[in-house]
This record gives sequence, C-alpha cells and structure tokens, in this order.
Amino acid sequence: MSLPETAIDNVHDVLKEHIPADQFNQVRDILYGGEVKELPIDTKSKQIGIENKFDIKYYDFPAAEEQLRKPNEVVVAVVQNSIAKPTTDPIDVQRSGLHDKITRIVEAATLNKVNVICFQETWHMPFAFCTREKLPWTEFAEDAESGPSTSLCCDLARKYSMVIVNSILERDITRGEVIWNTAVVINEKGNVIGKSRKNHIPRVGDFNESTYYMESKLGHPVFDTKYGKIAINICYGRHHPLNWLMYGINGAEIVFNPNATVNGLSESVWGIEARCAAIANSYYVFATNRVGSETFPNEYTSGDGKPAHKVFGHFYGSAYVTSPMGLRTPDMSRRNDGLLIAKIDLNLCRQAKDNWGFRLTQRLELYADELADASKSDYEPQIVKG
Amino acid sequence: MSLPETAIDNVHDVLKEHIPADQFNQVRDILYGGEVKELPIDTKSKQIGIENKFDIKYYDFPAAEEQLRKPNEVVVAVVQNSIAKPTTDPIDVQRSGLHDKITRIVEAATLNKVNVICFQETWHMPFAFCTREKLPWTEFAEDAESGPSTSLCCDLARKYSMVIVNSILERDITRGEVIWNTAVVINEKGNVIGKSRKNHIPRVGDFNESTYYMESKLGHPVFDTKYGKIAINICYGRHHPLNWLMYGINGAEIVFNPNATVNGLSESVWGIEARCAAIANSYYVFATNRVGSETFPNEYTSGDGKPAHKVFGHFYGSAYVTSPMGLRTPDMSRRNDGLLIAKIDLNLCRQAKDNWGFRLTQRLELYADELADASKSDYEPQIVKG
Repeated sequence: MSLPETAIDNVHDVLKEHIPADQFNQVRDILYGGEVKELPIDTKSKQIGIENKFDIKYYDFPAAEEQLRKPNEVVVAVVQNSIAKPTTDPIDVQRSGLHDKITRIVEAATLNKVNVICFQETWHMPFAFCTREKLPWTEFAEDAESGPSTSLCCDLARKYSMVIVNSILERDITRGEVIWNTAVVINEKGNVIGKSRKNHIPRVGDFNESTYYMESKLGHPVFDTKYGKIAINICYGRHHPLNWLMYGINGAEIVFNPNATVNGLSESVWGIEARCAAIANSYYVFATNRVGSETFPNEYTSGDGKPAHKVFGHFYGSAYVTSPMGLRTPDMSRRNDGLLIAKIDLNLCRQAKDNWGFRLTQRLELYADELADASKSDYEPQIVKG
Repeated sequence: MSLPETAIDNVHDVLKEHIPADQFNQVRDILYGGEVKELPIDTKSKQIGIENKFDIKYYDFPAAEEQLRKPNEVVVAVVQNSIAKPTTDPIDVQRSGLHDKITRIVEAATLNKVNVICFQETWHMPFAFCTREKLPWTEFAEDAESGPSTSLCCDLARKYSMVIVNSILERDITRGEVIWNTAVVINEKGNVIGKSRKNHIPRVGDFNESTYYMESKLGHPVFDTKYGKIAINICYGRHHPLNWLMYGINGAEIVFNPNATVNGLSESVWGIEARCAAIANSYYVFATNRVGSETFPNEYTSGDGKPAHKVFGHFYGSAYVTSPMGLRTPDMSRRNDGLLIAKIDLNLCRQAKDNWGFRLTQRLELYADELADASKSDYEPQIVKG
C-alpha cells in the first residue's frame, strides 16, 4: 500500500512544473492565498536531514508593521514521519527507534532556532487502532508526566530551550488506568505545564479509536507559553468547526493539528479544513500527519466489504501551515519524513481580526441559545413547510 | 477593473490544459474530491445560452443504491451574472434589464428540468453598498411578498413548477420601513412560503453593508419544499461556521450560498469555505457569486489608503457545487454569466452522515455550555500559564 512510483509527491510541485509561470501564479494565489517566501535552512541541519532522510522546509509569515507593537516573531515547527521499526519488533525497540528518529529531527530544528515544535499524533508508536487488538499495542500508552516519550521530550525541551507538544497515547494511572489520546505541553525549561486531550473520536473505517479511549473532559485549554498562546486540536477534531472555534475563543494564536490519516479517506479535505479554521478563527494553524504504510502482524478488516489485510493505508504526510489571513504553504511530501518550519509574526492574528471582523460579527449569544435548544432531546428544528 | 485578457477563466481548466492526464487526475482527486461527471445539456437551452451570452454546465451527483429507499433525485441550479444596464440608468430600467436577463436564464433552466433555482445575492440591482449613498440605491429595496422581483419570480415559479430562491434587498413596510438583505423562498406553485435573512453583516473594504441593514432576527429556517429541505446562507455568513452548522442542525439537505464578492478580498477562500461546510454538515452546498465590475456615478473610497474611484471590484463568479461527501464541481467562469445545474441524489446526505459520523461525534451539549459561558462579559478563557 505504499504510494506507487507514479504517485505525485505533492500538488504544488506538479502545478509549478507544468503550468506556465504567469498562470501558475494566478492558480497559486487562488489555491494558496499568495506566495509564501522560503527562508534559508541552516547548512548543518540540511546535512542531518540528508543523512536521516527527512525533508526540511522553512517559510516566512511576516505581519504589517505597527507603530506601538514590535514584531512578535517566533519560529514554529511540525514533524511528519514514518515509523522506524517493523510492528513485529518488541515494543521498546519500536519506541526507541522512534525516539532516535525524533531526536535527530529536533536537532535539525534547533539549528534553525525553532522555539516551538509539535510531533504528529501518537508519534511514539504505530497507529495500531485499526487492529482492535489491545496487547501489545496498549503497552505503548504511558504516563503523561513521567512516561518515556515525555521524559525524552522534557530533556530535549530543556537542552534546546524549546516548547514541545508531545502527542501520545496516555495511560492515566491515577484514574482507573484508562487510556487517552493526549497532547502533553512541555515548556522551554523542560517542565510539563499541562495537557490537552482529543475531543472528538472517530468511528470510521480503520479508525476504531473509540475501542481504546474516550472523548476528552478537559475542554479547550490554551497554553500561554514564552513563545505564544498555543492549543492542540488532535486529528479527527479537525472535522468539527466548533472545536476549532473554542480554541480561538480561548485566545489561541497557534493551533497545532497533529494527525494520523490515510489517503482515500480524507486526503481531499486535508488541505482545506485546517486552512478554513485558520481563517475563521484568526490564528495560525500547523497541521501535520504521519507518513507511509504500517503493516501489522494479524489480519484485520476495514468495514468496507473488502478482504481482510495487514497493511494500514498510506499516511500521506502533507504537513502545511496557514496564516490567520489564509495564506498557506505548499504541502510537505506525501511520502518522505519532514520538518516544516515557519517564522511567524503573531501580530498578524490581531491584524486579521481587525481586517475581516469575524469576532466582531460572530453573534456568540445567538448561537449559545440555539445550541442549547438544539441539544435538548425535544428540540423542534426550525422548519417552514412549503 | 475588468479581468485582464491574461487572467485565467477558472483554475480547473488551467490544470486540465497543462498537467499530464495521469497527474491531473491525482491533483483533481485531492483538490476536488474526484471527478464529477457532466450530463448532457438540452440543445435549445444551449442556444439560449449562446444568444444571451451565458455558460451552462450540468453535473451529476449520484448516491449509493439502497434497498429500502429509492433514489431521491432533484435538479438544482444557481445563477451567476453581471448587471444588465449602467448604474446611471433609471432604477426601473436597470431592474428591468436584470429581470429580462434572469428570465432568459430561467427558460434555459426549465429546459433542463431544473426543480429548484437560486439567484445571486441582491440579483435585482447593482451591489451599490460600496457607495454608502442611500438614494437612489435604496429604491431597489422591495416588499418581500409583493415587490417587482418577487412578482416576477412567483410568475416564473408557477409557469415552470420551480422552487425559486429570490435573494433581494427587502423593504420591510410593516416594521418601520427598515431594509434587510433577504432570501424569499417561493414554492413550485408560485407562492411565497417564507424568508430567510442575512445573519452576519460585513464591515470590510467596500462592503459597507451595516450602513444599510442589520443582522437577521429570523434564526436559521429550513424550507421543506417539494424538492428537498433547503436553506440559505447569504454571502458573508459563509465565513461563520456556526451559521452553516445551524442550517444543518435544522435539517437542510441543500444550502444555497448566494454572494457578491470580489477578487483580492476573498477569492483564495472562496473555493474552500462552502466546501468545508458541505463536508462538516453532510449537505449539498450550491455557492454562487455575481460577475463583472460595476461602475458607480460618484467617487468613493475603499478604506485601503488608495485614491477614490468609481469602479467596484471584479466580482469573480466561480459558482460551484459540493456534495455532502466533499466532491465538488469545477468553478464556473470568473468572467461570464452562467447557469450551473446539478442532478443530486438527496440520499447522499444520510449516507455521508453514517459514513463520517460527524453528527454522532459533535458533542453539541458541550459546546452549548461553552458558548453560553464564552458569551458572558466576565468570561475567563481557559488559559494554562506556562
């Protein structure tokens, strides 16, 4: 189920290669909101990328100059990657392989002065939820404060003065040992400052996640870090506009959207949901997704009438960044590991709010009332017979 | 401010012309969700299109076969058009010109067996709100039940057994003569069955609409017509995900999004907001927009530091349809008048709901509570200090 040789690496490069320059620019302006300038990548980090087979891209999102506020620039990154070892290897070997891979990528990130980095959903394990098997996969679940992946991230955060969003399968030891899908936020001193959990759990195709964990009860926290107010909308939550909305209401300037999603199912909506959310809520969105196929030891079915199989999808990577004004980068590769970096000016969030006026005109009270009514079991929809 | 000769007519045609077939198909699948088959256009209607200089496109959106429900196919259309006469002509001459133009387009529609049709925002007048002048433009405002444009639409609806969504500037005679931005819904017998009004009013650039009318107090009505449950999200309301959401909650199967929006401001988000809404809410969206530039008698400014001018934008047309599964048509032309028709199977709405499970997982109660809190003036955002 790997992408065939003839599969395109990303849409932007195909457009750029084949469409004459003047028309390409027009198409790009409509599809991407304009041109995002690239910034030079640190030479040593490039070498690490080549040696470890991951792409690096670095983009610039400036804001308009203001008189009373200085530019508020931070360097933010997301990572997309494949697993490092076969799923038949021992759990600790699989995890160590991923720890090594991520450590190399973070080294490349810090050489480019990255302040905040977010990894893909449950980056420390294969996305084994297609199997509906518990052991051995649930052994990857770890304590959010002291588990091995969090410990690694705390070390990296401290060493590089980097805020890290560590998206893991969490084992909640103190609450009946239940499992959650959790993003642990670690500050630049290496301390866990809190966590956010997945608010919407898919029940579609290979995404049998409700078999493993439930919807978050932690609401929509925003983490006020040294490098901006950040929030995390995990995976399938990207399909729910209300989820995006609440992070905006709580003041997020940057929302990370770590994913594990496969082609066929979601790829045609991938490029637009996070972008729409950035526009509607006047914040930056950094969306990322894992890469490659994952083969499991035992057969499973996908609820689509097709025969049982062992390979899970093709995770199509395609990380991208969108500004509050809707300007977005090209996608990263559909097949390679990658580090996507952007220098962003957080002043653009307020400028976007003033420009479009969506907060001004959003009528929250109206919708609070309507949703309160609509969520009652005796709700009568507003229907006019005709 | 007309589009220069070198401007592309629409993105899809540029991709199709320049990208090799195999790669084009991959790009199309990612950007448009797949291929939408075209259906044959009635020959006589084609001739009317040629004589009256409007394009016609006709697409097919089938659903999967079911055992207990028959296909529920209806033919639905939207219109995009330029004004017919200079804005310096007498008001009734300008309006008659548009009435004639729309009558020709509806004739072409009925030859293709269209059941439901929606015109662009305030189709019966130039989009004069850039001027901030009251007279003569407010003379276009008319009674929703008995005004000249509604009367024309009632006649056409009766004659052709067509449901018509008539998007007008409304003069509310019985309520202090205030003006609204209103969509009047007329059933296939030619009777007005109700109206919906614009819920979110822009305050940006040339869109000085809050100078003329206020936000609707009619909520989010859905009209249960002979040809499906329809709702209307007028123009700037497309930027507000909650607006789309409530039409879905009230049961809409088809949401029309009539617009007047210009390039530069909104074109890079045009193709994705209505499409995202269709996916998030499991209904069809028909989005349309006016065409061409409109020149006004007196100079006005646009709040962008540029000199006063008389020409308003370039309205870029680009009507399109998206299915509940996210499959969408190419855009109509950026410069020509057009009639966009689609045969749609309404069964696809339920199939999309079952497939993606967004209603199942949307947690309305949670958001009703959170929005109720968030709309209080003493709301404390959920911030974690880090």
